[in-house]
Amino acid sequence: MTFTERLSDSALTIAELGEQGLLRLLKSYCPVDVVGDDAALLTPTPGQQWVVTTDVLVDGVHFSDRTTPPHSAGWRAVAANLSDLAAMGATGLGITVGLSLPPDCSVDWVKQLYQGMAACLAPYGIPIVGGDVCRAEQRAIAITALGQVEPQQAWRRDTAQVGDAIVVTGSHGGSRAGLALLLGEQLDLVQGAERLSQSFQDELILKHQYPRPRLDWVEGLRNFVTGGLGDRRVTAMDSSDGLADAICQICHSSGVGAKISPDVLPVPQAFKFMSHQALNWVLYGGEDFELVLCLEPKLAAQICTAASLGAVIIGEITNSDVVLSQRDGTQLRLNLESGFQHFS
Amino acid sequence: MTFTERLSDSALTIAELGEQGLLRLLKSYCPVDVVGDDAALLTPTPGQQWVVTTDVLVDGVHFSDRTTPPHSAGWRAVAANLSDLAAMGATGLGITVGLSLPPDCSVDWVKQLYQGMAACLAPYGIPIVGGDVCRAEQRAIAITALGQVEPQQAWRRDTAQVGDAIVVTGSHGGSRAGLALLLGEQLDLVQGAERLSQSFQDELILKHQYPRPRLDWVEGLRNFVTGGLGDRRVTAMDSSDGLADAICQICHSSGVGAKISPDVLPVPQAFKFMSHQALNWVLYGGEDFELVLCLEPKLAAQICTAASLGAVIIGEITNSDVVLSQRDGTQLRLNLESGFQHFS
Repeated sequence: MTFTERLSDSALTIAELGEQGLLRLLKSYCPVDVVGDDAALLTPTPGQQWVVTTDVLVDGVHFSDRTTPPHSAGWRAVAANLSDLAAMGATGLGITVGLSLPPDCSVDWVKQLYQGMAACLAPYGIPIVGGDVCRAEQRAIAITALGQVEPQQAWRRDTAQVGDAIVVTGSHGGSRAGLALLLGEQLDLVQGAERLSQSFQDELILKHQYPRPRLDWVEGLRNFVTGGLGDRRVTAMDSSDGLADAICQICHSSGVGAKISPDVLPVPQAFKFMSHQALNWVLYGGEDFELVLCLEPKLAAQICTAASLGAVIIGEITNSDVVLSQRDGTQLRLNLESGFQHFS
Repeated sequence: MTFTERLSDSALTIAELGEQGLLRLLKSYCPVDVVGDDAALLTPTPGQQWVVTTDVLVDGVHFSDRTTPPHSAGWRAVAANLSDLAAMGATGLGITVGLSLPPDCSVDWVKQLYQGMAACLAPYGIPIVGGDVCRAEQRAIAITALGQVEPQQAWRRDTAQVGDAIVVTGSHGGSRAGLALLLGEQLDLVQGAERLSQSFQDELILKHQYPRPRLDWVEGLRNFVTGGLGDRRVTAMDSSDGLADAICQICHSSGVGAKISPDVLPVPQAFKFMSHQALNWVLYGGEDFELVLCLEPKLAAQICTAASLGAVIIGEITNSDVVLSQRDGTQLRLNLESGFQHFS
């Protein structure tokens, strides 16, 4: 039986395939001229700084067979890392994949995982340049993404200034709502006896299973900023741990506060009613992988009127406290504690 | 109670410390100007190629409380990665650490793990530049090491040529013998009623718990090669998966064979008798993290007479087959199958 024929058996396990066979399979997802030695060699553009980020995703914590088929788990693992590159204003050069697998894991699961990773990487031409596989009791994926950025041009989170406009690159809450649907949780997104249509349900599930890392923003915003006049600072963070978390982290790092208008927060179309649950998911849901930017107000306004980008100003940077300023005049203070606490 | 006072409680668990507290602790092992944003920024020497390698180590597979205290587990995790950089002829720039931890893991264990990593990194001035922590059922450490090398100067494994001398940078088998001692396995390293002395036992255990990555060879050999005349090819691989594995991989990649003389294989001082067990550990034991080099014979001879390096010629590259040529004229064929098979 040929190697390819063996792999077509969907019941084949990792233990049956063996370590050498598994490595051969995984290498088929990598460029041949980069892998196969003790380490991978990459040739960056001369003079650029390196950007490095690592994320670990564990079965039952970040993904599960119930909510994320392997193709989606692979996509999400890559998206989480590329999102961090985007939040630094970097372009991607490659990723490494450290894979922990139980011996009874099916080879088919691994193939679909890698196909999902490859699908997420493809639009940006980013290769898988190396990795490692190891036996473990629980499936886990540790990805390190490598990127590059012009020296002194990285988008940091500690450079926001009072008066900056706060911009988001897209809607929030959709990923958490999609997870709720997959888990069969009660949804409170429509009023009265109305039901959430199937297409809206699909939209939310897609947002959970296939979030889009905003690397498309790196070049777009860079061109905008370079072309503009005056203050070209870009303060940025991704909203992987939630919108409120991103705003709080930027404010904490920059020593400033923020005032957010809940009425203008972009939400998925499926959110037809801003219930308490919906607002909670928008602020604390996490894993939408949008960018949160702080920019000089005129620059922010220009960017948000550029229709193709789909960005929205949601508030401004203030002297202190991170608050949600509601229409009735009350103010809700945002904090980090409601965000993800993976160990609690 | 201050943060430092809380950390001094050796019974404190990760769940009690919380994710933010854990991140604060781990950041204390990183340079302040590099970590704290979505990704780390590194400034390499202009014009160098990047070298990237990843290793995953899992509790019960690569380390355990029985054989490797957390300080040693951290050291070994780093050593495995730095060894891959050395095998490419690269110098190290930084590592990222993806940590999977059960909530009931003690903070003390994590502190000692990081102290072990820091101790292994210190001689080379390599910083921890980022990482991630995640809840999991099993402890695991996924490290990615980043290095740099002059373009076209990387030491590959596919460039060995017939007639090359095969050089090893140090002894093999010690790590496996140390593991045997820690596991209480029967040792067959001395003859008759002789006992292995305590100091020899300690030497072997040290080789298992604190293997030295051969980054010291990168500059040393580079200087030698640059200064020499004629053929300056360096073919290299580290022996992390065993000496036989390294030789077989080089031969497979280069399309050549090898003939090894067992009598000249350097072994730890504690190996007082070349039993079948001892030879097996020298060839297949693994995790000694020495370099296996193929060099033009005159260059190899020069290097091996340089006393400070401690290298030994163990054989030569031939047309085909990897064989151990024994004193009585018999030949033992080496193969990959006896090496590590993590999934079997």
